[in-house]
Amino acid sequence: MATTTFDKQKTIDLRRKHVGPSCKVFFSHDPIKIVRARGQYMYNEKDEKYLDCINNVAHVGHCHPDVVEAGTKQMELLNTNSRFLHDNLVMYAQRLQATLPEKLSVCYFVNSGSEANDLALRLAWQYTGGKDIITLENAYHGHVSSLIDISPYKFHQMTGAETSQHVHVALSPDIYRGKYREDHPDPATAYAENVKDVIEQAHEKGHKIAAFIAESLQSCGGQVIPPVGYFQKVAQHVRNAGGIFIADEVQVGFGRVGTHFWAFQLQGEDFVPDIVTMGKPIGNGHPMSCVITTREVAESFMSSGMEYFNTFGGNPVSCAIGLAVLDVIEKEDLQGNALLVGGYLTLLLDDLKKRHPLVGDVRGCGLFVGLELVRNRDKRTPATAEAQDVIYRLKEQRILLSADGPHRNVLKFKPPMCFTREDAKLVVEKIDQILTDLERALDLHMHEAVISENGHSKRKEPSDENGLVHAPNDSSHKHVNTIPHSKNNNKRLRT
Amino acid sequence: MATTTFDKQKTIDLRRKHVGPSCKVFFSHDPIKIVRARGQYMYNEKDEKYLDCINNVAHVGHCHPDVVEAGTKQMELLNTNSRFLHDNLVMYAQRLQATLPEKLSVCYFVNSGSEANDLALRLAWQYTGGKDIITLENAYHGHVSSLIDISPYKFHQMTGAETSQHVHVALSPDIYRGKYREDHPDPATAYAENVKDVIEQAHEKGHKIAAFIAESLQSCGGQVIPPVGYFQKVAQHVRNAGGIFIADEVQVGFGRVGTHFWAFQLQGEDFVPDIVTMGKPIGNGHPMSCVITTREVAESFMSSGMEYFNTFGGNPVSCAIGLAVLDVIEKEDLQGNALLVGGYLTLLLDDLKKRHPLVGDVRGCGLFVGLELVRNRDKRTPATAEAQDVIYRLKEQRILLSADGPHRNVLKFKPPMCFTREDAKLVVEKIDQILTDLERALDLHMHEAVISENGHSKRKEPSDENGLVHAPNDSSHKHVNTIPHSKNNNKRLRT
Repeated sequence: MATTTFDKQKTIDLRRKHVGPSCKVFFSHDPIKIVRARGQYMYNEKDEKYLDCINNVAHVGHCHPDVVEAGTKQMELLNTNSRFLHDNLVMYAQRLQATLPEKLSVCYFVNSGSEANDLALRLAWQYTGGKDIITLENAYHGHVSSLIDISPYKFHQMTGAETSQHVHVALSPDIYRGKYREDHPDPATAYAENVKDVIEQAHEKGHKIAAFIAESLQSCGGQVIPPVGYFQKVAQHVRNAGGIFIADEVQVGFGRVGTHFWAFQLQGEDFVPDIVTMGKPIGNGHPMSCVITTREVAESFMSSGMEYFNTFGGNPVSCAIGLAVLDVIEKEDLQGNALLVGGYLTLLLDDLKKRHPLVGDVRGCGLFVGLELVRNRDKRTPATAEAQDVIYRLKEQRILLSADGPHRNVLKFKPPMCFTREDAKLVVEKIDQILTDLERALDLHMHEAVISENGHSKRKEPSDENGLVHAPNDSSHKHVNTIPHSKNNNKRLRT
Repeated sequence: MATTTFDKQKTIDLRRKHVGPSCKVFFSHDPIKIVRARGQYMYNEKDEKYLDCINNVAHVGHCHPDVVEAGTKQMELLNTNSRFLHDNLVMYAQRLQATLPEKLSVCYFVNSGSEANDLALRLAWQYTGGKDIITLENAYHGHVSSLIDISPYKFHQMTGAETSQHVHVALSPDIYRGKYREDHPDPATAYAENVKDVIEQAHEKGHKIAAFIAESLQSCGGQVIPPVGYFQKVAQHVRNAGGIFIADEVQVGFGRVGTHFWAFQLQGEDFVPDIVTMGKPIGNGHPMSCVITTREVAESFMSSGMEYFNTFGGNPVSCAIGLAVLDVIEKEDLQGNALLVGGYLTLLLDDLKKRHPLVGDVRGCGLFVGLELVRNRDKRTPATAEAQDVIYRLKEQRILLSADGPHRNVLKFKPPMCFTREDAKLVVEKIDQILTDLERALDLHMHEAVISENGHSKRKEPSDENGLVHAPNDSSHKHVNTIPHSKNNNKRLRT
């Protein structure tokens, strides 16, 4: 059993003193001290158990013994840089490549999703000779300076932020809240046309496109699932302009979507990105990540004459851990589990939607699921405060969930992949109770919600209230005072 | 004992197929496959032992059992992000802070020296409102795009590289090969004046300085030790211009210099940087690093409104490993060992200088030592090919050393800190033999070298040949054909 050195208040005080104040904790008014974890459960200093519905890094389960063993054995033997030959590096590269279309065959091992996406940009700049990057609304791609520039999710948080002239923001292909919705005859083409427009605007300024980058499914952006065919059409426009397509799988890869190993594969077999970046789940918490690209892009990068060396990237310990994670996914059929349990979870949430007016949308693939809360189903008014209430009340019942998206009204499910049907059932039951309480306080009723939803044309243009205006600190929605513990603000607790 | 999966040729073939060609190996014509390591020794697939004189990452010795144990125990218990409270994080922050001047009190935990330096730039930009960065000739600060921009060591490798208009390159304070040398009455002031000039030039263009960044001792730049007092004077000029001082300790911190824990402390107690970045040795190979700054800079960064979140940074495993590294440094008095053994190594190298005309300069602090080879002591003509010969012939005798600096003629010693006097003696004996062979082939004689050195005014301006012109791919020096295994090119194998 884990012991602690300090009491909780002392930990808080020391953290306040010695850790950057920009580094936030979950539930800042009463943060959680976690001392151990196993599978999908985390334990606080009193050994109280929390169900973890959010930790997409502890992919194969917290502290999986196979992963720990692989790391330990290799740490005892050798941990050095990739300027020496080592079998772990090449075996791991081979194994990763085998999960991807054949032309994605060349790996670069780095330490974080941020390092991976930054390197992807460098590869794109060098290969295309272009400088401009197209990114999506609400996108988040990492915390190094080049990525803040292409992450509206981040730079919109900043007071007085300037957008780089080489960065262009395209519409988020969100068919629930975006410009083209589920009732549009062809949202994939419509959203891709927007990218084409963005390219044309860049060309008018004399700029050259290097890349389009997108998460295969937008995560921080609100669990957005782009319509099938969108990536193919975007890739065509971008490649016609001399640019390349970067699929950011940092949050959504490694079998999470259930039907496929990579989320970009949801778009169909005819779609192959030029670069894929991976991270978070890749080492089950060990700091590592990878960029995989084509031989052509890799050769072009080499032709610049500049070596690429990453001190820790691809060391034998990281590779041993990466291999163990792949083994566990396979051995325990966690991709299959994601499909089954994710499907069950989505079914339960669909049922909630039938009974709760606050539920605006349920969407998901495998264990990547979003539950979008709205005050009004027709107007799709984001229920931001209510979403906060849900996560705070779940926390009291020792269930960890988060809310995200531009309005922080999307409950995000991205649990360790060993999540069970029982876990799904438990969390949905709790949400059911909380929504019942919230709706009672708000005097919201299901039949009115349905009437409102059906009584209006689905074709109408979204109003500002529906969320096309960015309002990261929006607090215009009145708070539900009957619900306790809701005055706390973790608005910036995203990613 | 370690086993291997593939024979060496298969490892090479798979690497060629699946790993980015920009990622180079040491000794590319016949790379080394290492399967285990311990202390200052590495072992190849035939269990042949190499003495490691270069691995500044395996700081407390390869696979130190205390570090492995700390990592293992914590991996079994918990590895999660810093949004939960954990004692390891705050204990580690407290311990690191205790090694630094009091005002450097706020930590940000990240995954690599590159992430650390990029964050340092972001802190500087936000705190000062400036955009411009002053960097030194031959500097290397990391591989993410923002750092390539401030690393002449890297961007000079690139064909057709553009220098960012916000980056200004100041003279390297190299008193052996730079503009102001050991015979200058006050090189610290003279080099600092150059930074002042650079600031004035930036101001003339209407630019504002955010920061001056330098390694406390330039490592890839050629093991350069700036004159005492230089940093104080630079800091004054930079702060007068509204900028801040970033000390990059990624390669040189954690007791390596022997007399002090941090290399910037060599400048005197009256010097305190505004930001210190650390990396490589911090986790003995585990991917981790840290930025430490003042409360003022940290508060300003927070006031931007943007959260800083790093998925892996500051996780309990990294912190446990970091704490173990600090414990071992203390317990085994490795800083003291660096002072003693480093002093002994320097003494032996000084003796080589007396007997070998090829030795132009010996410089070092603790176990950070450079041996600069020259063809002509007066002209200080870089002996690039000869330095390559030395490292290739040492490799044949199973000693790992590297050559670096803008002319790749500086032999770099930066071994694990458990390096012994016997190790030092062995490597110097081998170098002694190799230099003797080389000098015989070149028909170089000591008395001529001394005459040439004394026969000229030391005050003369350096000529191009002395190396003020960047020539990263310079191969003008004829090769010594009598020395075998010298046709191999690892010119890009730096860092």
